Amino acid sequence: MLPQWVIENKRDGRSLAPEDIRAFVQAFTAGELPDYQMAALAMAIYFRGMTAAETAALTDAMLHSGDVLDFSAWPRPTADKHSTGGIGDKISLILAPLAASAGLAVPMIAGRGLGLTGGTIDKLESIPGFNTRLDVAAFQRVLADVGCAIIGPIDRLAPADRKLYALRDVTATVPSIPLITASIMSKKLAEGASSLVFDVKCGRGAFMRTRDQAQLLAASLLDTGRAMNRRVSALITDMEQPLGRTAGNAVEVAEAIEVLHGRGPADVRALTLALTAQMTLLAGIHADAATAARELAARLDDGRALENFRRMVAAQGGDARIADHPQRLLPQSGASCDVPAPRAGYVAFVDAEKIGRVVLQLGAGRCHADARIDPAAGISALVQCGDQIAVGQPLLRLHARDAALIEKIRAEAAAAITIVDAPCSRPPLILETLS
Amino acid sequence: MLPQWVIENKRDGRSLAPEDIRAFVQAFTAGELPDYQMAALAMAIYFRGMTAAETAALTDAMLHSGDVLDFSAWPRPTADKHSTGGIGDKISLILAPLAASAGLAVPMIAGRGLGLTGGTIDKLESIPGFNTRLDVAAFQRVLADVGCAIIGPIDRLAPADRKLYALRDVTATVPSIPLITASIMSKKLAEGASSLVFDVKCGRGAFMRTRDQAQLLAASLLDTGRAMNRRVSALITDMEQPLGRTAGNAVEVAEAIEVLHGRGPADVRALTLALTAQMTLLAGIHADAATAARELAARLDDGRALENFRRMVAAQGGDARIADHPQRLLPQSGASCDVPAPRAGYVAFVDAEKIGRVVLQLGAGRCHADARIDPAAGISALVQCGDQIAVGQPLLRLHARDAALIEKIRAEAAAAITIVDAPCSRPPLILETLS
Repeated sequence: MLPQWVIENKRDGRSLAPEDIRAFVQAFTAGELPDYQMAALAMAIYFRGMTAAETAALTDAMLHSGDVLDFSAWPRPTADKHSTGGIGDKISLILAPLAASAGLAVPMIAGRGLGLTGGTIDKLESIPGFNTRLDVAAFQRVLADVGCAIIGPIDRLAPADRKLYALRDVTATVPSIPLITASIMSKKLAEGASSLVFDVKCGRGAFMRTRDQAQLLAASLLDTGRAMNRRVSALITDMEQPLGRTAGNAVEVAEAIEVLHGRGPADVRALTLALTAQMTLLAGIHADAATAARELAARLDDGRALENFRRMVAAQGGDARIADHPQRLLPQSGASCDVPAPRAGYVAFVDAEKIGRVVLQLGAGRCHADARIDPAAGISALVQCGDQIAVGQPLLRLHARDAALIEKIRAEAAAAITIVDAPCSRPPLILETLS
Repeated sequence: MLPQWVIENKRDGRSLAPEDIRAFVQAFTAGELPDYQMAALAMAIYFRGMTAAETAALTDAMLHSGDVLDFSAWPRPTADKHSTGGIGDKISLILAPLAASAGLAVPMIAGRGLGLTGGTIDKLESIPGFNTRLDVAAFQRVLADVGCAIIGPIDRLAPADRKLYALRDVTATVPSIPLITASIMSKKLAEGASSLVFDVKCGRGAFMRTRDQAQLLAASLLDTGRAMNRRVSALITDMEQPLGRTAGNAVEVAEAIEVLHGRGPADVRALTLALTAQMTLLAGIHADAATAARELAARLDDGRALENFRRMVAAQGGDARIADHPQRLLPQSGASCDVPAPRAGYVAFVDAEKIGRVVLQLGAGRCHADARIDPAAGISALVQCGDQIAVGQPLLRLHARDAALIEKIRAEAAAAITIVDAPCSRPPLILETLS
């Protein structure tokens, strides 16, 4: 394997041999192949794409750049969900304990946010004491005891992805379907889950702006999952508007707890149920979608999912009382303020991208990888499409470290929301299901 | 200038601002911008190309990454020629003293070969004592005394090009017209010559395989030269078959001296005259092509060009008697051997690429940048298209360090030559003149 020939082959649109892909990734991970050759290959992949077989080989090489967890001997079926990310997406916090309550083991390794809002790990870290840095043994112990555990990235899993992602980030090679696929899949496969469900979001609050792009990514994820002998399915979901009525970190934990109490916004509950149902269906726990939806809804309504959440928080060192007193125990922002409606009418649209930018400026997201997040910052009590409002009624509540920061952002926050005269209803959230 | 945004702009097909190109190249040359970002940009340029304005800005940035020689106050007009390289191309050795004899100053900074055969510098270094590593002061002194000087690359001139070329070589980003243009032009402009003539070769013995590619490169070189306020013209010349009857280093010096004596192969003489005429025309020394050709031919025939060659060799520390006794003073190969014609007929074709591979294996070229060249190795007495031959008559003579090496390559050498029954003539050498 001569690296420049591999680059040249891809540059000229030829398919790469699996052994060349493997050797390239191995040498890159070992530091024997310089970053500039990987950068050139990544850019060539950006322009030329990869076949399903090449993407699977790349995924496999990145997966085997480190350890791979193995739960094949466990009594419970393992399953996980991955979302491509969006504004207000707190689904994982609800889905993991819900799926665990239904008999699955959910070994979830999640990321920090790099973009407009925090990631699942940032959200969990707003729970006092919650430890997202368990080692593998502790991770497996929590998983065995509770049925779910959510931790941050582990150095030993898919190290090639970490190294490649950092390089892609500074070489304008992030938006490439095969590279995104290999990045997501190598991390998720390293978790050892047998079934994987993908929430591929599209719209102005998502990485994939159009439904076409989301379909391409979903197809690539499913192809690769099947090539790696996993049971997989995907939902393509709308991310033109935020999910739920909160966006931030602590505020989203509070909303997730609401849903775990059988309450909360209908869209968050519906999407959680749909994604969890895909997991139980793939794992063979439920025989059909209707049964899965009914069974899982009951587990939200009767507190069984909440009980798993409570136990997971406790097992990971957090204050489990949070499940019952979120407002009291979650971090409180230095300042908060309602933004009133300038007119009466119906909410026609809440712009997810604008909300994301507001949330970032409030301190809830990261501009760069080393930035610190303000766990209490964000938006709560956000109106949703279809809500009827009176003039002066709050459109949303801003939370930030001080009133000056809020004052600066108020107008921008209000501008994210379109109010019209006639009643309107939110467009479908789940656009399609692929399996 | 945020490097990843510059890369992203090019990746998405947008034109880069001159100040962004300048800042990118400056940071790269200073070692402040990592090689992987330059590699990613180079690959994006490979796919997206560059406008004439961008190529000029890139050239300008690379040119000003180091010193720029300035001959604007000299009494003689300065001019130089650049060839994109081919098999048997010894034109510079004749052209520089010929142009000097006609009143030009030729500050030629040439390269070593990296490819099938040696470069001009390798060829000159087969002359005993010839010093191609003059410092700038000595270079200018020889130029003032003789009217021409030929030296190898100088660290202080266009250092960005050296660094970028090394990177392109290992990232499969060599064959890009704007990158080739900026590489050639930044080096040539740093020499300070007012007029530049390009010999863009096409065919199987050249870097540009097709005439279309050669036209694109020539147009890019001319556009950039004009944007940089130089007088420029270009010939597109055929490189399907080798130039002259020798290929190697010492053997090519000997042939160049033949031409400087008014003898030698017609094709080498014709191309030298055509290229030198372009230089004197651009510089205003000759008013029209016919006068230039006649005047220059006379300087080859009456020994005036040879006298400049003699003086250049002496001024650069070489043994000037070489001009009159090349066979005696040039290095002799350890072994040499004629390859006989397997049949009688006419030479229909001499395959430049195959001849190049033979010459490389004989030891006259470089497989990698650090390889040592055997100055005496190569091919002489090579037949040319149209030659009539008897069976057993030599097709060429091989020179190498030992007979075993020659024996290994004989058959491959013979296979480079196509012999047919009917008389044939060589296709045109000069395909077009662009200015």
